[in-house]
Amino acid sequence: MILAIDVGGTKMAAGLVAHDGTVTTSRRAATPQNAGAETLWNTLTALVDPLAAGAEGVGVGCGGPMTWPGGEVSPLNIPGWRGFPLRARLARRFPGLPVRLHNDAICLAAAEHWRGAGQGSADMLGMVVSTGVGGGLILDGRLVNGGTGNAGHIGHVVVEPDGGPLCGCGGHGCLEAVARGPALTTWALSQGWTPGTPREGDEEPYREDRVVTGRALAADAAAGDPVALRAMRRAGRALGIAIASATHLCDLDLVTIGGGLSQAGEPLFGPLEESLREHARMGFARRLKVMPAALGQEAGLIGAAALLLAGDAYWTSTRD
Amino acid sequence: MILAIDVGGTKMAAGLVAHDGTVTTSRRAATPQNAGAETLWNTLTALVDPLAAGAEGVGVGCGGPMTWPGGEVSPLNIPGWRGFPLRARLARRFPGLPVRLHNDAICLAAAEHWRGAGQGSADMLGMVVSTGVGGGLILDGRLVNGGTGNAGHIGHVVVEPDGGPLCGCGGHGCLEAVARGPALTTWALSQGWTPGTPREGDEEPYREDRVVTGRALAADAAAGDPVALRAMRRAGRALGIAIASATHLCDLDLVTIGGGLSQAGEPLFGPLEESLREHARMGFARRLKVMPAALGQEAGLIGAAALLLAGDAYWTSTRD
Repeated sequence: MILAIDVGGTKMAAGLVAHDGTVTTSRRAATPQNAGAETLWNTLTALVDPLAAGAEGVGVGCGGPMTWPGGEVSPLNIPGWRGFPLRARLARRFPGLPVRLHNDAICLAAAEHWRGAGQGSADMLGMVVSTGVGGGLILDGRLVNGGTGNAGHIGHVVVEPDGGPLCGCGGHGCLEAVARGPALTTWALSQGWTPGTPREGDEEPYREDRVVTGRALAADAAAGDPVALRAMRRAGRALGIAIASATHLCDLDLVTIGGGLSQAGEPLFGPLEESLREHARMGFARRLKVMPAALGQEAGLIGAAALLLAGDAYWTSTRD
Repeated sequence: MILAIDVGGTKMAAGLVAHDGTVTTSRRAATPQNAGAETLWNTLTALVDPLAAGAEGVGVGCGGPMTWPGGEVSPLNIPGWRGFPLRARLARRFPGLPVRLHNDAICLAAAEHWRGAGQGSADMLGMVVSTGVGGGLILDGRLVNGGTGNAGHIGHVVVEPDGGPLCGCGGHGCLEAVARGPALTTWALSQGWTPGTPREGDEEPYREDRVVTGRALAADAAAGDPVALRAMRRAGRALGIAIASATHLCDLDLVTIGGGLSQAGEPLFGPLEESLREHARMGFARRLKVMPAALGQEAGLIGAAALLLAGDAYWTSTRD
C-alpha cells in the first residue's frame, strides 16, 4: 500500500493506493489561503498522518515549479511555499519509507497511462486543461522528465506567435494563454456570455453552474449557448495546433485530455480534431488519437502512487 | 570499423568509421536522377562494396519517410525508391553483419551528440536547416525514436497557424514551409533579391555563389545584403518560435543547428535568439543554448556509425 498525496492550490488530498492502482481510502482538506509555510505543512500532516500506518512508500504530486528530483516546491498557487523542502520533510516524518515527488500534471499523465485511457500506448501526452494547461510525456513506454523534471509543458507551446494573448509565463501566444479556463471565461464574458444562461424548459432562475468557471462555460457550450460554443471553438483550435506540433515532434500515438474543460465534449473536441487534422499532416501523425482522460478525481493520487508502484516506467531519475 | 552509408537525394556517401568516431576513408557518388530502384541500388553497391572488407557492421542514414526499424525506405527526394527494402538488401549483401538504418536527420543529431557540439548534453534537439528542416531528439542521453521512428520532426511544428505558407506535408504554417532554403530564396527573389549582389570592393562580375540557393542567400546576408538579411530574420524568428515550443515541451538544454542556412551566422542566429527569448519564458527554459552544429560534411557518416558504435544511446529499438 502506498501513501499518495496530491497538493494543489485549492485542496490537498491523501489516500492509500493498492498495488493494482485502486484507491482504497482517501481524504481531502482545503489548502489554507494566504498561509505561511508551517501552517500549510501542519494542514498536510494532519491529513496524511492517520493514513501512514503500514504504508510502504510515499508518492506525491504537487503543483510546480519545483526542483526535481530533489522536491523543493514553489507552487505558483501556494505562495506560502517557496523552495519548501517537501520531499525532505516527508522523508523525515516517515523514516525508512521511500518518498518520490513529481509535478502534478506529470502524475496525472502517469495515472492515465498506467490505469486510465492511455493503457497500452507507447508514446502519449497526458494533458490537463483547467485553470492552467499542463501535461506529461510518455515516450517508449516511459515517463520523460527532461533535464529539470519539466518535460510535458504543452501549455507553453506557442499557438499564436503574432499578437497572441499575454501568458502568465511572460511570453505571449502560449496555448495556456488562450485555452486555460480563466482566459476563456474572460474572453466569453467580453463577448456577452452570461454564465448559466437560462435554457429552454429552464424554470429555476438560480442554478449552481451560474458562476464564472471554465466548467460552467463548458456546460453552457454543451447546452448550446452560442458564445460558449465560440469559446470552446477558440480553445479547441488552439489545442489542435499545439497537439499537431507535439505529435510531429514526438511521434505520439495518443493524447488524453482531462480537467474541467474536457467536460465540454463535442463543442471542444470537434474543433480540436478539425484543427489537429489541418495541421498534423505527416503520414506518421495520422494514427494519433485524442481521447478524454478516463480517471476522475482520484487520478492525482493514482499517479503519485505510480511513481513507486510502477517506478520502472514513471520514476526514471537516476538520483533516487 | 563500421561501414557507414549516407543516402540523400543529390548524393550518396560511404565511409569507414573507427570506434572513436573518426572517418578514416570516405567516397561519394551522385544519386542517379529519375532512376529506377535497381539502378539506384547498383550505384550504391558500387560505392559501398570496396569498403566492406573487415567491417564489423553497417550503419545507414537515409532520407525519410521509412518504416522503422524495418528500414523500407521511400525517400521524398528519391522517387525511384518507394518501399524499397534497403536494410534487408544490405543485410543480404553483407551476411553476418548487423545492419541498422535510421532517418538521416536523426543520424545527424546522433553525430552531434556523440562527437560534435552536443557532447555532454542530456536533452538536446539536433536540427538541420537546408532544403528541408529536420531534427532528432535526444532525451535523458538517449535517442528518442517515437512510435514509428519519426520523433524529431521539428520542421512540422506550427509557427504561423493563420495564413502561413503551404507546406510540402499538406499543412500550412509549418516551420519548414517558412524556413527551408527554397522557401526563403523564393521569398527573397519576390522581394527583389539578386543572388551574389555585388558588394563594395567587388571587382569580379561573376561569382560562384551567384546562384539561387539557401547557402548563397546566407552568404549574401552575412555580407550585408538588406533583402537577404530580412530573409534570414524571417527564418530566424520562425526557428525561435519552434525551438521555444520544443524546449517547453521537452525541457531541453541544447539545440544544435546545421545545414546550409546555419552558415549565415549572426543574421540568422540573432533574430533566432531574440524570438526564442521572447517565447521561451519558463524558468527552466532559460538554460537552453542554441549552437551551430560542429561537424561538417561527414556528420551523416558519423551518425550512421553511431547507431552501432554507441548503440546503447542511439539504437534503442527493442526489435533489432
